[in-house]
Amino acid sequence: MRASQYLIATQKETPSDAEVISHQLMIRAGMIRKLAAGLYSWLPLGLKVLRKVEAIVREEMNRAGAQEVLMPVTQPAELWQESGRWEQYGPELLRMQDRHSRPFCLGPTHEEVITDLVRNQIRSYKQLPANFYQIQTKFRDEIRPRFGIMRAREFLMKDAYSFHTDQASLQETYDIMHKAYSAIFTRLGLDFRPVLADTGSIGGSHSHEFHVLAASGEDDIAFSTESDYAANVEMAEAIAPEGSRPSPSETMQEVATPGQHSIEQVSTFLDVPAASVVKTLIVQGDDEEAPLVALVVRGDHELNDIKAEKLHGIAAPLTFASEEQIRANLGCSVGSIGPVGLKIPVIVDHSAAHLADFVCGANRDGVHLTGVNWERDCPIDDVADIRNVVPGDPSPDGKGLLEIKRGIEVGHIFQLGTKYSEAMNAKVLNEEGREQVMIMGCYGIGVSRVVASAIEQNHDENGIIWPDALAPFQVALIPINIQKSEQVRETCEKLYTQLQERGLDVLFMDEEKARLGAMLADVELVGIPHRVVIGDRGLENGEVEYRHRRETENRTIGLNDIIEFLTKTIE
Amino acid sequence: MRASQYLIATQKETPSDAEVISHQLMIRAGMIRKLAAGLYSWLPLGLKVLRKVEAIVREEMNRAGAQEVLMPVTQPAELWQESGRWEQYGPELLRMQDRHSRPFCLGPTHEEVITDLVRNQIRSYKQLPANFYQIQTKFRDEIRPRFGIMRAREFLMKDAYSFHTDQASLQETYDIMHKAYSAIFTRLGLDFRPVLADTGSIGGSHSHEFHVLAASGEDDIAFSTESDYAANVEMAEAIAPEGSRPSPSETMQEVATPGQHSIEQVSTFLDVPAASVVKTLIVQGDDEEAPLVALVVRGDHELNDIKAEKLHGIAAPLTFASEEQIRANLGCSVGSIGPVGLKIPVIVDHSAAHLADFVCGANRDGVHLTGVNWERDCPIDDVADIRNVVPGDPSPDGKGLLEIKRGIEVGHIFQLGTKYSEAMNAKVLNEEGREQVMIMGCYGIGVSRVVASAIEQNHDENGIIWPDALAPFQVALIPINIQKSEQVRETCEKLYTQLQERGLDVLFMDEEKARLGAMLADVELVGIPHRVVIGDRGLENGEVEYRHRRETENRTIGLNDIIEFLTKTIE
Repeated sequence: MRASQYLIATQKETPSDAEVISHQLMIRAGMIRKLAAGLYSWLPLGLKVLRKVEAIVREEMNRAGAQEVLMPVTQPAELWQESGRWEQYGPELLRMQDRHSRPFCLGPTHEEVITDLVRNQIRSYKQLPANFYQIQTKFRDEIRPRFGIMRAREFLMKDAYSFHTDQASLQETYDIMHKAYSAIFTRLGLDFRPVLADTGSIGGSHSHEFHVLAASGEDDIAFSTESDYAANVEMAEAIAPEGSRPSPSETMQEVATPGQHSIEQVSTFLDVPAASVVKTLIVQGDDEEAPLVALVVRGDHELNDIKAEKLHGIAAPLTFASEEQIRANLGCSVGSIGPVGLKIPVIVDHSAAHLADFVCGANRDGVHLTGVNWERDCPIDDVADIRNVVPGDPSPDGKGLLEIKRGIEVGHIFQLGTKYSEAMNAKVLNEEGREQVMIMGCYGIGVSRVVASAIEQNHDENGIIWPDALAPFQVALIPINIQKSEQVRETCEKLYTQLQERGLDVLFMDEEKARLGAMLADVELVGIPHRVVIGDRGLENGEVEYRHRRETENRTIGLNDIIEFLTKTIE
Repeated sequence: MRASQYLIATQKETPSDAEVISHQLMIRAGMIRKLAAGLYSWLPLGLKVLRKVEAIVREEMNRAGAQEVLMPVTQPAELWQESGRWEQYGPELLRMQDRHSRPFCLGPTHEEVITDLVRNQIRSYKQLPANFYQIQTKFRDEIRPRFGIMRAREFLMKDAYSFHTDQASLQETYDIMHKAYSAIFTRLGLDFRPVLADTGSIGGSHSHEFHVLAASGEDDIAFSTESDYAANVEMAEAIAPEGSRPSPSETMQEVATPGQHSIEQVSTFLDVPAASVVKTLIVQGDDEEAPLVALVVRGDHELNDIKAEKLHGIAAPLTFASEEQIRANLGCSVGSIGPVGLKIPVIVDHSAAHLADFVCGANRDGVHLTGVNWERDCPIDDVADIRNVVPGDPSPDGKGLLEIKRGIEVGHIFQLGTKYSEAMNAKVLNEEGREQVMIMGCYGIGVSRVVASAIEQNHDENGIIWPDALAPFQVALIPINIQKSEQVRETCEKLYTQLQERGLDVLFMDEEKARLGAMLADVELVGIPHRVVIGDRGLENGEVEYRHRRETENRTIGLNDIIEFLTKTIE
């Protein structure tokens, strides 16, 4: 492509609303432009990258035996009413009416539509398993769209849905998708991890997320230092400490802690480690007889909401008791609660339950207890895993310790079970000739989000550093003084033609009046992996200058060798 | 692809709402399924065809120097308010509100969004001309969606928009697009015609439609028998008859025509050809002094509304006077009007103006006039082209005669001028360093509609007959008794592998229990161009049966020759 015939819309300014680096660089490199909050147009350079992701996703989905379909963006309300989600789904579901006042929505996902399609097309177990996917525009009316296309309202997604008559078949397709996803992200050249994940509101029983690792990620991922174990921190199991609890060695005493509320304040004031203090949190129960429940974790640990709300007796979603409720029921403020003498159910995290001689609130303002011991000073009936893992925790698979990194979720695979097929009466005749509800899986990839995540993972202060598979162009051809030197022009034109003949995707910076510095900056910002600079001085020695985007020094290469060199390097 | 792993959703029943053959066949062949009125899901087989159209469109647009972008489906109201179309566009524009009650619409077209994008990105004449396109989902809330994807609400469209500083540059890009469209429809294997077209409500000055010829088309297209001239009948010029009007030879007489109103009734009653009778139509004028205007055409001709409403003095859109208005002003009923003695402006079509001794209404119920002559009996001041052309009319370019065929509009190119750039203040600095409003062109192809139009043009009683470029598969491999004959199975598996190695796209009908008749019917319905049937009887002689979808007889071909034969035939 000739730059003179291509919109290279690079800019120096970073828009004020661009908080993350991928958003900043996508705007600065001229990949996207904002139309309205959470709505972006893809400029030619950006779309080229997006299409490369799309092509790899499509190839691997086809290879994995999935069949491509295309469902409408607009969906009738009836189907969502059938599944029950018309009411359940929050305002992220953009609802609207057509000219005849019939209710529709913009699809944020397509479980209902595919289930409707399949229940009408597939009647027999012989047609199963089947896995249908599409690569299509989705809409989620995010309350605060941000991070550019990372959390946009309109975005491109690959969503797949599989149908089965038994769990073994679902597991088989699920495993195939797990492998296909790994193949996709490997081909894209991204450092990623499949991690165990919560199934969230979409329902179902078993799920993995695929995360691109990047410091700016919104999710914490726990990894084993010595095995493949990886899980979203929301899911990672904190296993109970080994051995039995140490015996008490201190007596319980009240100490005055005026004005000391937080764990940090109390541990500093009493000069004990945070790990020797326990934190008692009061949440809503789901039982009339126990409207409040106390959750106890070690002072250096954090409560894991998702684990907690799954416990028997706890209201979901997890809701903390108000200051007023606490004062009315316990007679103290939030910062002074402790498990001793509490009249409500107490659930203790494994690590907290393993403490002896610990510190806790006395359920009186300005007073804490030291030397507290379970059983001796307060009963301990319910022990559970209710905390986030921390670095150094043993890996739940027994191999190595956990470390925690940040990740950007770019894919998600679920075992949905019969949530939708049951509600929508999607049945087939099974081998015994009896009607049976189908079992479903679903598998998503945020295609546009992949582009942003690749940038979060691959950039420097000068711009984007694309993995080869995603680069909008492979080679940038940069002339010095093209408007003055016939020699430079002719050499460039010839190289441009020859490189294209070799099947390379070349951006020829052929604009008459472009300054060299500006061209080099553009090529670095845009992230083209290979650049060749051609000037009279080098040509006198039959040489051109080459640099890879990841390198900092030019290499001098013979004009006669450059085509062979590029072809080989890129292969 | 193995049929056992692919959704072949053929069906015998034709849905009751499928009026046109393409809609019927797309449902029966399992290409699409209806989700709601005007909303269709594309099943794997249909999507495969759609993607082939998309790929050819993309290749030719790129070749023509257009740059691909991707704009959002959802568009903010502000831009449409800026262009004035938020109010002008009817209920086909689906308007909605987001969670913050901000108004948006689902894009039926993208003039506003691209104009906004370009005014922000392009500042100088040096960056022009530029031509941006996208292949993207559009939504038009049709009042009565029908004909399947032919007139759906959600559909896939290629829309392109070009920007210029002068008319010559626009004309150049317009001509390039004209050539690119011809290349696209030629590669698609369709019998099509570019025709002069009205610019309609989208505005602008110059426009061509691209029509796929098919008896079921909604538009009438006029062609020259001897030149390239082609125009939509709404636009085709009816040139004035040569020579001067014959001299009067009869005297004007009143004749009683009780109960005779229509041209057919009057010409039969008086035993004169319809071409000797004139039809006088009363329409609203746009001038207070002339609230009604009479339009006169020959009895065998039809008024052309679009030509008429462009005339000076006529209200647009063209509105016929009511029965009451006519009686109040002329004193007679609609079927008895004539130009003699009329007190309102009379505009006469060229052909009607060329008549001598004609018949017309006498402006009294039940009475007509015969032997009427212009000038002698009634003044003739305004003569214009206000009729539809008919077969046999001379071609406006002076070469040959016109014939009329039906067409399906699949593409449209416009010279938009400054309609949007003016309203939205889209300016660049021109060569003199002064701000200048950009001139625009726009260029659309109904990508999903192309699929339907190809079927309207290529089918028989057994199903679809795809042009090679559009066929979902090139070859169908059909075994006889695969579940019983190891020889058939092995031969098919081997052929399947070898044909794929040759790069052919093969559908292997490998289902154990499929009946031969059903497989043959499916392959014909779906329209796969080349089919090979393999059975034990043929294999004993080292032979297989081949038939092209357009042929009616099988050919016997040696098993050892079939691969070479298919490869060569398909090339």
